[in-house]
Amino acid sequence: MPIDLRLEPAEVPLLVDLYELTMAASYFKLGFNQPATFSLSVRRMPPRRGFLVVAGIERLLEAVEQLRFDADALDYLASLNLFEADFLTFLGNLRFTGDIFAMTEGAIAFANEPILEVTAPLIEAQMLETLVLNQVGVASMLASKAARATIAALGRHVFDFGMRRSQGADAGLVAARSSYLAGFIGTSNVLAGRRYGIPLYGTMAHSYVMAHDREREAFTHFADLFPRLSTLLVDTYDTPRGVENAAQVALELKRRGFKLQAIRLDSGDLAELALTARRILDRHGLQDVSIFVSGNLDEYRIEELIRARAPIDAFGVGTATAVSDDAPALDIAYKLSEYAGVARLKTSANKPSMPGRKQVFRAFNEQGGFYADLVALADEGSVTVAREFKPVPARTEPLLTKQMSAGRRVGARPTLQEARAALLQALAALERRYKHLTNPAVYPVNLSAALNALLVSERARASRRQD
Amino acid sequence: MPIDLRLEPAEVPLLVDLYELTMAASYFKLGFNQPATFSLSVRRMPPRRGFLVVAGIERLLEAVEQLRFDADALDYLASLNLFEADFLTFLGNLRFTGDIFAMTEGAIAFANEPILEVTAPLIEAQMLETLVLNQVGVASMLASKAARATIAALGRHVFDFGMRRSQGADAGLVAARSSYLAGFIGTSNVLAGRRYGIPLYGTMAHSYVMAHDREREAFTHFADLFPRLSTLLVDTYDTPRGVENAAQVALELKRRGFKLQAIRLDSGDLAELALTARRILDRHGLQDVSIFVSGNLDEYRIEELIRARAPIDAFGVGTATAVSDDAPALDIAYKLSEYAGVARLKTSANKPSMPGRKQVFRAFNEQGGFYADLVALADEGSVTVAREFKPVPARTEPLLTKQMSAGRRVGARPTLQEARAALLQALAALERRYKHLTNPAVYPVNLSAALNALLVSERARASRRQD
Repeated sequence: MPIDLRLEPAEVPLLVDLYELTMAASYFKLGFNQPATFSLSVRRMPPRRGFLVVAGIERLLEAVEQLRFDADALDYLASLNLFEADFLTFLGNLRFTGDIFAMTEGAIAFANEPILEVTAPLIEAQMLETLVLNQVGVASMLASKAARATIAALGRHVFDFGMRRSQGADAGLVAARSSYLAGFIGTSNVLAGRRYGIPLYGTMAHSYVMAHDREREAFTHFADLFPRLSTLLVDTYDTPRGVENAAQVALELKRRGFKLQAIRLDSGDLAELALTARRILDRHGLQDVSIFVSGNLDEYRIEELIRARAPIDAFGVGTATAVSDDAPALDIAYKLSEYAGVARLKTSANKPSMPGRKQVFRAFNEQGGFYADLVALADEGSVTVAREFKPVPARTEPLLTKQMSAGRRVGARPTLQEARAALLQALAALERRYKHLTNPAVYPVNLSAALNALLVSERARASRRQD
Repeated sequence: MPIDLRLEPAEVPLLVDLYELTMAASYFKLGFNQPATFSLSVRRMPPRRGFLVVAGIERLLEAVEQLRFDADALDYLASLNLFEADFLTFLGNLRFTGDIFAMTEGAIAFANEPILEVTAPLIEAQMLETLVLNQVGVASMLASKAARATIAALGRHVFDFGMRRSQGADAGLVAARSSYLAGFIGTSNVLAGRRYGIPLYGTMAHSYVMAHDREREAFTHFADLFPRLSTLLVDTYDTPRGVENAAQVALELKRRGFKLQAIRLDSGDLAELALTARRILDRHGLQDVSIFVSGNLDEYRIEELIRARAPIDAFGVGTATAVSDDAPALDIAYKLSEYAGVARLKTSANKPSMPGRKQVFRAFNEQGGFYADLVALADEGSVTVAREFKPVPARTEPLLTKQMSAGRRVGARPTLQEARAALLQALAALERRYKHLTNPAVYPVNLSAALNALLVSERARASRRQD
């Protein structure tokens, strides 16, 4: 039976803003359906962010490839009394037949460079706007946030525990996937484990301890059933007493040949409690029992705890990475940049767009580090473009690759594991100053001379469009 | 064909944190499955919030009623090698058989009062935790945020245009529904229109203007096809010139017996541009063409624009209400408060819980205004409780009503329209000082003497649980 929590297949194409459909109806009526290019980019970096991680591309392309308005969807649109019958018939036959160039899943990107460009008949390309922004926006925002926690943790394990605070069911899945992509070790989200093969982790809730008459009994019961993976939550009541109880259970497990994995602290002064806990555990010879902490953690808190040399082995992060709490939306836009072979440009105050079909070239040095990007026109060669970088790069790489051709997905489709490995390698190659958590340097993104020239000439032409 | 954007039916019960399942396995093994009560509440008001709007109850109950682990879900769980076969068989037969008391959809609530209480066999009640927090959390957070925009707009129309910035597809639906519940006039989200009967609105994108060689031609084309509902976007290039072009089109429409609905400003200094636009329109005798504004609006900006007496008739709000950008997560918790007839209490630092089964009573004065809430034990009568309010209320109302009995939904199920009307009435009755946008007064929520006594005795008992 359909429930509100789930999308029905007929509903996917209706994930649009109404104006996509009214504009489409107008284009249909006018016969405006020449090839158009729309370009997706982040206009401004979120506060304190030095880089972005691109995500959501795989999911988007999958949905685009299968986009169909079925009879149910058309019936609903007809009921609005806005659309003529021939337009609805056209919509019923509509398939996405265009090309999509995009950065690969897990790519590192910066503000004002195209992340994705769609070239398709105007109506098809326009119709994707809402879905592109919604999907690539949230997945990239959450991957970008999670990468910061990975950086802060300096190699210690970080887990996603955020589903309960995610903005809906879908956001919980995206958060689990994006954070794993960005270096987290696993998630508590069972469905994300099933869908994406992400390792699942879990501890216990306070309610488990509370449902027992004695804390130690709760610990024993849990360890008895899961002797190989128990993490005991020690802060339901008094924390040091909880650690002592956990230590007793760990010793009992040890006698039986098992090892308690960890204790978990979820409240209070985590740095101090971790020290206390470490002392108690060590006094019992339990040096191999890890300390896992959670409770309103984010990259800033993780950095602080590590600076304070708190003896913490792993971090469970929830709200902060689940919603990107300090920057919960990306200033991301999907803008028309060419129609019918002619460059297009918007000149509104503070929100200008970039004309033409474009490519992003990244400059690498001899050591494999990258140090600048250049946004160029799509037909500029990498040789011409290399001359515009200073210093001259050892090599340049075009970041937008063809991922959809005539409506079909093409090219390599990295698995989540592959995308994760590539991202972690790229993050390691990214200079430290761009990874600073509060005051990152601004990575150089320049426009090629040819793109600049087009921008200048189009600005002049834009004025004449109002005559 | 299944796509990642959609949940399959088998996936809904897997929207849990792993520990819900490991704890359930342990309870199953131990035979711990007596009645348990879990209580949902917001522990702390988000910054600057004076009240909350409860939402997501309807959707949650619908999902709970239909929760089933099917063979696919069980196969996946078996593959984890964590669970014994008899537990998985038990899960396969599991249905929710408990009772749920909750505030009604659209109720006004405050921190530290139960929004919802589940009483069910321990395993069933525990298993709902992630879903309850995720769903009631996001819907209530977004309704609470949207209500602030409604308040700021002082009766002017507010529209939801946020889907593109929502954290996923599901969040976009929740935002559209929650904001309509909280007084918005409509949404651009077509699927939300279809599902919930919310009025749909839309204007045009900059790309529509840009796809034309001339701005005025774009306006004419759009107005020709939609002469009854055109709102023309005038800021693609120079805004005053855009308004002038829109005015010419409006005059042409007028000659043909139609009226241009509005012009839309989406960038720049909105207060100043609105003044300029109003002057231009009025000069042409177009006093009846409205001015609609958008572009990074929130309740604070709306308040500012209205204070500046900007001649604005309607507001389109996107990001701010789509993600509750200044408070993108609620500090909401689902805590065990009773098990096997015995009250339970967590005493962790800064995160205490409240014991027992509870009721929330609201005190009303003669004029129908409400001025204080009392959290009491569920079996306290309203007569006893009325004595604890000062001044003595004209009447009190219990806010938690039975919405699910033995796993079946019961009681009145308000339509979205009914819930919206009731909320708008309650908001009107809420004293102004609680509605202040930046520095609201703290609404009085007290504990009944009986609940207080239980809290004290349970605190003492909690300490003994660690012996």
